Amino acid sequence: MSNPTIACGHGIGAASMSPPSALLSVGLIGTGSIGADHARRLARTVAGARVHSVFDVDSARAAAVGAEVGAEVRRSAGDVIEDPAVDAVLVASADESHAEMVLASIGARKPVLCEKPLAPTVTESLEIVAAEQAAGRMLVQVGFMRRYDEGFCSLKAAVRDGVIGQPVTSHCVHRNATSPPGFTSAMSFTSSVIHEVDTMRWLLDEEIVAVTVVPTRTSPLAPEGLRDPQIVLLETESGIVVDTEVFVNCQYGYDVRAELVGSLGAISLDQPSSSTVALEGARRRAVVWDWRDRFASAYRSEVQQWVAAVRAHATEGAERPVATGAATAWDGYAATAVAESAAVALETGARQAVVLEARPPLYT
Amino acid sequence: MSNPTIACGHGIGAASMSPPSALLSVGLIGTGSIGADHARRLARTVAGARVHSVFDVDSARAAAVGAEVGAEVRRSAGDVIEDPAVDAVLVASADESHAEMVLASIGARKPVLCEKPLAPTVTESLEIVAAEQAAGRMLVQVGFMRRYDEGFCSLKAAVRDGVIGQPVTSHCVHRNATSPPGFTSAMSFTSSVIHEVDTMRWLLDEEIVAVTVVPTRTSPLAPEGLRDPQIVLLETESGIVVDTEVFVNCQYGYDVRAELVGSLGAISLDQPSSSTVALEGARRRAVVWDWRDRFASAYRSEVQQWVAAVRAHATEGAERPVATGAATAWDGYAATAVAESAAVALETGARQAVVLEARPPLYT
Amino acid sequence: MSNPTIACGHGIGAASMSPPSALLSVGLIGTGSIGADHARRLARTVAGARVHSVFDVDSARAAAVGAEVGAEVRRSAGDVIEDPAVDAVLVASADESHAEMVLASIGARKPVLCEKPLAPTVTESLEIVAAEQAAGRMLVQVGFMRRYDEGFCSLKAAVRDGVIGQPVTSHCVHRNATSPPGFTSAMSFTSSVIHEVDTMRWLLDEEIVAVTVVPTRTSPLAPEGLRDPQIVLLETESGIVVDTEVFVNCQYGYDVRAELVGSLGAISLDQPSSSTVALEGARRRAVVWDWRDRFASAYRSEVQQWVAAVRAHATEGAERPVATGAATAWDGYAATAVAESAAVALETGARQAVVLEARPPLYT
Amino acid sequence: MSNPTIACGHGIGAASMSPPSALLSVGLIGTGSIGADHARRLARTVAGARVHSVFDVDSARAAAVGAEVGAEVRRSAGDVIEDPAVDAVLVASADESHAEMVLASIGARKPVLCEKPLAPTVTESLEIVAAEQAAGRMLVQVGFMRRYDEGFCSLKAAVRDGVIGQPVTSHCVHRNATSPPGFTSAMSFTSSVIHEVDTMRWLLDEEIVAVTVVPTRTSPLAPEGLRDPQIVLLETESGIVVDTEVFVNCQYGYDVRAELVGSLGAISLDQPSSSTVALEGARRRAVVWDWRDRFASAYRSEVQQWVAAVRAHATEGAERPVATGAATAWDGYAATAVAESAAVALETGARQAVVLEARPPLYT
Repeated sequence: MSNPTIACGHGIGAASMSPPSALLSVGLIGTGSIGADHARRLARTVAGARVHSVFDVDSARAAAVGAEVGAEVRRSAGDVIEDPAVDAVLVASADESHAEMVLASIGARKPVLCEKPLAPTVTESLEIVAAEQAAGRMLVQVGFMRRYDEGFCSLKAAVRDGVIGQPVTSHCVHRNATSPPGFTSAMSFTSSVIHEVDTMRWLLDEEIVAVTVVPTRTSPLAPEGLRDPQIVLLETESGIVVDTEVFVNCQYGYDVRAELVGSLGAISLDQPSSSTVALEGARRRAVVWDWRDRFASAYRSEVQQWVAAVRAHATEGAERPVATGAATAWDGYAATAVAESAAVALETGARQAVVLEARPPLYT
Repeated sequence: MSNPTIACGHGIGAASMSPPSALLSVGLIGTGSIGADHARRLARTVAGARVHSVFDVDSARAAAVGAEVGAEVRRSAGDVIEDPAVDAVLVASADESHAEMVLASIGARKPVLCEKPLAPTVTESLEIVAAEQAAGRMLVQVGFMRRYDEGFCSLKAAVRDGVIGQPVTSHCVHRNATSPPGFTSAMSFTSSVIHEVDTMRWLLDEEIVAVTVVPTRTSPLAPEGLRDPQIVLLETESGIVVDTEVFVNCQYGYDVRAELVGSLGAISLDQPSSSTVALEGARRRAVVWDWRDRFASAYRSEVQQWVAAVRAHATEGAERPVATGAATAWDGYAATAVAESAAVALETGARQAVVLEARPPLYT
Repeated sequence: MSNPTIACGHGIGAASMSPPSALLSVGLIGTGSIGADHARRLARTVAGARVHSVFDVDSARAAAVGAEVGAEVRRSAGDVIEDPAVDAVLVASADESHAEMVLASIGARKPVLCEKPLAPTVTESLEIVAAEQAAGRMLVQVGFMRRYDEGFCSLKAAVRDGVIGQPVTSHCVHRNATSPPGFTSAMSFTSSVIHEVDTMRWLLDEEIVAVTVVPTRTSPLAPEGLRDPQIVLLETESGIVVDTEVFVNCQYGYDVRAELVGSLGAISLDQPSSSTVALEGARRRAVVWDWRDRFASAYRSEVQQWVAAVRAHATEGAERPVATGAATAWDGYAATAVAESAAVALETGARQAVVLEARPPLYT
Repeated sequence: MSNPTIACGHGIGAASMSPPSALLSVGLIGTGSIGADHARRLARTVAGARVHSVFDVDSARAAAVGAEVGAEVRRSAGDVIEDPAVDAVLVASADESHAEMVLASIGARKPVLCEKPLAPTVTESLEIVAAEQAAGRMLVQVGFMRRYDEGFCSLKAAVRDGVIGQPVTSHCVHRNATSPPGFTSAMSFTSSVIHEVDTMRWLLDEEIVAVTVVPTRTSPLAPEGLRDPQIVLLETESGIVVDTEVFVNCQYGYDVRAELVGSLGAISLDQPSSSTVALEGARRRAVVWDWRDRFASAYRSEVQQWVAAVRAHATEGAERPVATGAATAWDGYAATAVAESAAVALETGARQAVVLEARPPLYT
């Protein structure tokens, strides 16, 4: 693993930073739900950047977001990426287009923050890894935002500091209220569990070497044909088994939990809540409905630190335009490899080994 | 499942009860740790009973407990069980002797409360089931005390009332601070996970039909040769998968948790605590060290309701001298069958089907 | 304070105890809500006692409870108290009759457990204290059941053990869903806050020397004429101020909280709950509706320990037939004195000193 | 109250915003602990601003912070405030200098964000209010950062939405681990409780009309001469009593709590924590040590929204350069008036009425 440092960035940072110079001009590809959020974040809550130009396959959507954040609207992704006035690229388009956008950004030698997944397939992911190597330097950061969540960072710190001793197992839960139309059993891995995969690789600083899928009883409220919930067992190099429940139609809200168990103790993520209401025979703490609310602060920190890293690279000669501790293209590849193996494991019903390429020196 | 009724008995009961007559004279086999506790419970905190006589292979131990609770000390288990003055038998001797003691009690036509497990082997368990059938009536109650714990009872009530919709999966954790000398990897199932087996059969009102053991990384603090922790997957008739972590050397205390996940919501056991201390930079809630503290109230209720059931059977013609909702010999057998299958699954590394006999009419 | 020992009695006790002899025959005065509960407790969940006879001004109610627990029904309280077959008396009649019943019990030289308050007036309370002194020994225990609640006991233990350093202040909340008909502003003190008074005297081992009532905005849902909620400030001998909110129409349930703040840390009562339900956008933990549910376990322990103390006194020569750590007649008097002062303080709007008699040697 | 709107700003905002133009150049007065934090915030985590120049009476400290954030260092506060290149002023100097700095900023017609308190005395606060009126428009925002804390905002939303019915009382706790040298009993009000005063005025949308101080037993760990803890009773126009414990030497951390009680239910602030560690017999949730950690996110949001409001005022003709829902000069004056009355109440030992000037139209 390359980045053991924890850099939640919820404080104001201890690291010194040079005086701000010109704002970073970001080109945004994709102005849907998360893309529009990122645009607003860059414009309103992140220091040191502006949205320079945007593109979306839905031009009306692009126009609306462009107007909102004062960015120009382009006719193609290429027009954004290749524009010399664009310093860096944020990719928030459909998953299927990620690889193309990231490769174009690398081709233009521009830093790029790509929403997860890096790419839906191992093949594409490896193309990106190869392109970065060919470019001779890291340009890609993958948007695994949990690495910037205070709760997950406190788990990371506990592992690093040996608070719980040596990790031996872990339990995760990943629930969504309802799944969007067209969601498949395999998408539970590529879209949801891929977060747990990245989280565990990062927390434990080990690769996942095998995956098993155990379908449990399907909820009567799951759409026809969808296996939901499912239990996924991830095994790491050192033999740690992580059991994860993924349930994308749990009905009651968006609920993400994790517990790391070690030889001396255990640490579990607290459920964020800001108040408790006593009413009608119960104490109630709200469960958020949407992942964007759950991770709003993490997303802001992620984008903020990416902007800071890109600027530090441009103006201060920092080694690479990727935030410390962030997911790299290698991390994006490894996560996709595990998710793809999970899809195979679901088909076969058997434990599926995850075979990774040798890690290139760029990522060590 | 025979007993869907929940009868925690932490309140004072709504059911009518006849006037108290003579105290139930209980013969106690085994005066070790849990046996001595039961003796004190019967003498000091349970209505309607007295400890009439005791036996233990360690005669000094038997003498001490006998003196403490005012009971006579016998030279053999048979002397206790066959004594006409003994109305009912409580078996708390070594697991290996359970079957012999229970069979003798059935032979003497006396109600018997047997500590878990009913017997360590399926063979012995089936002998007991057969003996009860031969006797033509239920005499045996098995000491799965969780059925009397307020937390577990609230889960049972939630399932019964449909609060969480249709159950689809469940997660359990069962941790002990340290394991006793001689503890083996298989004993994690026969001694610890057997509780989760009974709990899940009771909560879900279904048999467990298969079990898989997934050993995870072993704690460096586990004794040589012990696989610890382990992940056990239980599958029910309807396909519900229950994942259970059993960890008998977790170091920090005794910690039992359970979450039931349904199609509408989820319910999880609260960690009992009576106060929170803010001190030196942390809010602290105590974790108990010993299972006897965690389940003290459940044990009292279990013994109280057994005594009440035996007395109601004796004096009011209640159908059977076993508390409503309690674990029967059949439940004891089924739990042992699953635990035994888990031991096989650990050996083979494969999913092991649990094959049960047909349930006799006595238990339906 | 006389009884610093904590004796929650939720475990099974470490103290040795003689063999059980004959059951304690309890005469019960008052078979209303709490009286009927006590009858059932004695009959079904407490070791060593039986309900021998009962009386209630409502003879039908007495007959029903008598039949339920196998007790004889008497025509007068005197018939119960003076019956030579009655070993001890439990007073659960209307508050106004407490003094008469307790005095009659003392006159008959019988141990008596009197529901709180000992008596509604200081004058009556002092009569009881005088009668006990004249009798030359303690016979009276007052039913302040919180002294047997696990949560409150853990606060007591923390103070005793110096966990929080020297206590400096405390915050209490005492809420009921709705007040019964006829409830007055002063009854908030004599019926509700009197619990906080006893609790704080017991926890801090000091007398309350002054009380101030601060009426806050009245809830629009409080009955006409009732000041509700109210803030009561209790001051102890050493200057500790305890603020207590009493709110008898809070609508949402029965909610009792307490926090003790010391020079090193603070300890607060946990809200008992046995499970948490995630449903419809919230995690919910139940709040009980009724104080009898909240303190069911404390009540059982209280009655159990009273029975054990009376029996130990009768058969083993224990010094007094009052449980260790229980509220004595002196405690009952002091609590009533504070509640009465609070009623004066409400009238005057000023801080009201609490003037207590000198504590007789019997209570030191 | 002027600003019932809640604008925590932890999300990314729904309100539209014009495209970013030039960065807001902020002049910073005071580069001590909180001043340096604000400098870093403006430079690193807030969109749309830069620190243009700084001044501090400690020139070395100013130089260090200036270098860190790329700002010029000035020889006097006036040099900062009057510099035409400075668009807005942030005052974080010693409390005693606040009025002078704010008045100078108003004189220069520049928007100013002043750390709490607006001024330590009512006289100075009224001068500021008068100056703003003379200027004919609002320029001042006071740094009561809790209005941007997610927890407090959820209380505000609950009151606004009627979730708890009509508020009737409230309980607050404000604890610091240790007090700085020179801290006095009155400073507990002017420095600490002033936060509760602003919070309650904002939450309840009412003025505080009286205050009573109830000193409780002093901690043996409080410095000589300091009354600590103290209980402060705040009364609002409608008669709501708020009891507040202020304890500036609680030893265990920084702990702020609040509960609002209404006619239908109650809402309490959750203690922020991101994880729970099970270790050595306890579950532990961290309590922060420093208020800057507790409110880091609130501070960021406060400064972000102030910057956005000033920019919107400058470029879009927004009515005033003060964030929606923020504390105005009037709010700052009212809070100081209550704190000053509390100091009198401590001296006299009596309830002290708070007499406010008539609210000028500018603040309605």
